[in-house]
Amino acid sequence: MWGIIATWRMAVEGIGKASEMLKAEGDAGDAIETAIKEVEDFPYYKSVGYGGLPNEEMEVELDAAYMDGDTLDIGAVGAIKDFANPISIARRLSRESVNNFLVGEGAEKFAHREGFERKNMLSDRAKIHYRNRVKEVQEQEIKPYSGHDTVGMVCLDTHGKMTAATSTSGLFMKKKGRVGDSPVSGSGFYVDSMVGGATATGLGEDVMKGCVSYEIVRLMKEGMHPQAACEKAVQMFDETLRRRRGKAGDMSLVAMNNKGEWGVATNIEGFSFAVATADQEPIVYLTKQVDGKCVHEVASQEWLDNYMKTRTAPLVEK
Amino acid sequence: MWGIIATWRMAVEGIGKASEMLKAEGDAGDAIETAIKEVEDFPYYKSVGYGGLPNEEMEVELDAAYMDGDTLDIGAVGAIKDFANPISIARRLSRESVNNFLVGEGAEKFAHREGFERKNMLSDRAKIHYRNRVKEVQEQEIKPYSGHDTVGMVCLDTHGKMTAATSTSGLFMKKKGRVGDSPVSGSGFYVDSMVGGATATGLGEDVMKGCVSYEIVRLMKEGMHPQAACEKAVQMFDETLRRRRGKAGDMSLVAMNNKGEWGVATNIEGFSFAVATADQEPIVYLTKQVDGKCVHEVASQEWLDNYMKTRTAPLVEK
Repeated sequence: MWGIIATWRMAVEGIGKASEMLKAEGDAGDAIETAIKEVEDFPYYKSVGYGGLPNEEMEVELDAAYMDGDTLDIGAVGAIKDFANPISIARRLSRESVNNFLVGEGAEKFAHREGFERKNMLSDRAKIHYRNRVKEVQEQEIKPYSGHDTVGMVCLDTHGKMTAATSTSGLFMKKKGRVGDSPVSGSGFYVDSMVGGATATGLGEDVMKGCVSYEIVRLMKEGMHPQAACEKAVQMFDETLRRRRGKAGDMSLVAMNNKGEWGVATNIEGFSFAVATADQEPIVYLTKQVDGKCVHEVASQEWLDNYMKTRTAPLVEK
Repeated sequence: MWGIIATWRMAVEGIGKASEMLKAEGDAGDAIETAIKEVEDFPYYKSVGYGGLPNEEMEVELDAAYMDGDTLDIGAVGAIKDFANPISIARRLSRESVNNFLVGEGAEKFAHREGFERKNMLSDRAKIHYRNRVKEVQEQEIKPYSGHDTVGMVCLDTHGKMTAATSTSGLFMKKKGRVGDSPVSGSGFYVDSMVGGATATGLGEDVMKGCVSYEIVRLMKEGMHPQAACEKAVQMFDETLRRRRGKAGDMSLVAMNNKGEWGVATNIEGFSFAVATADQEPIVYLTKQVDGKCVHEVASQEWLDNYMKTRTAPLVEK
């Protein structure tokens, strides 16, 4: 068996490439890195890699992580600027014996010395979004935008190796140096090849309060199906946040176990995700909540067409 | 009931100050911040705050975190330079609605704007340690030093509020920008006032692979005593690391539940910790493993005298 699952529609082209590699008995590390790079490189996604929206100082600062479920090796970068593929730097860091999580200038130095090429990650569209946002909020304090569409993936190869990976530009208009859950083990991602893996998208500051990815893997280890594990963890933690804080940030989790079974849970409407396995061509689903359960429906062609049309529509400076 | 527990002998003076506050029905947030600041300010501790040992570029980069067990608010800084009390910046960040975890230059900007004073955190003793280390390893690659004595604390006040906090200069000779487990929720710390809290010291890169602080709190939530929870989590994860990687990094965890009961487990020899409760004056224990169990013995006066003598001994440049 092989399989790969990812947050959001934007991941499906990457999932497609990864599927071909996994079908050919490729490595779960290579497949997931390829899939994430595909998302990082696509200029029309505003929350990952090139084209990602900047922080309040108009700098694109990126977070990413990679985890190997066989060895539990982790590599992560936080608030790194001007490198095209943070996921590749994170994976490279996962092979170090220590110093696996590097941030800011230190992460950039490491990447440069390792031969990664610098790239100006601030696209023209991102600049327009920034300027429009500044105009919109001229009379208010600049607040982080509610969009925070991290790409997170869990992958299983035919050798039984599992990996997890994340990549994001984080909150639009975040403070310089802000790190979300994406490079934080147990919150943004977790994977153990003996069990399975999980990864998160949503409000990182809230996801970190509950170590939700770790909790889902733990529930799968107790024997729970990934769907039941995701629903239990997300529902419980959403309730905890509402009880303690009066509100809960957006939170969507995807998981896969070491049999290629998968699950998804969310506390928002209209969460999309992409999945492919040995039994299933790459496909996009939309999740909605019905009677407290998460129901996944295949995205219609109309929805898919509209998705790409709105992403690539001409952008006008206000 | 009130109580406070902390990693390492170095915490005992801070624990003493916090005890007075807790006895007077003070707040667990104020008490833990006071206790951590005491450790950060003492120049002879080489792994926390002023006097902390520098990274490979001879810069002192500090990590710290604060968590409120009532609201689950978290504040954290990573790789921050030249501020005296990272714990106070972390606590300040915990009150923000988002942008709770800041690193590097962004964290420094935030601290400066919030009125925290800059301070050169590189002490003369730390410089001598650095130069000696460079000479020692002239013919080898500079590797991070094995010492990594993070101060981590868990605190319970008479109102039933619990907090957790950490502060560290991380691995001596770490790479610039390296972040350990101390500001990482679930790994370096976790606390829930309805249950209890836990915090870690050791090799951050390994602690992060297991979310060990979260796991201990979870076991306490299932009804386990803090001592049993610590032993189970540390032993299980140590075994997992040895099985998967052939070795396990140093790992010592302390925990307290919301009744003021506490526990400690470690996979090293000679781990010291400090604890005080309504029933117990501040005291230093040493932990050793006997037949797979952790046994805590009160530190002898001789051990305590020798501890401070070696810390403050004149340091000669080689």
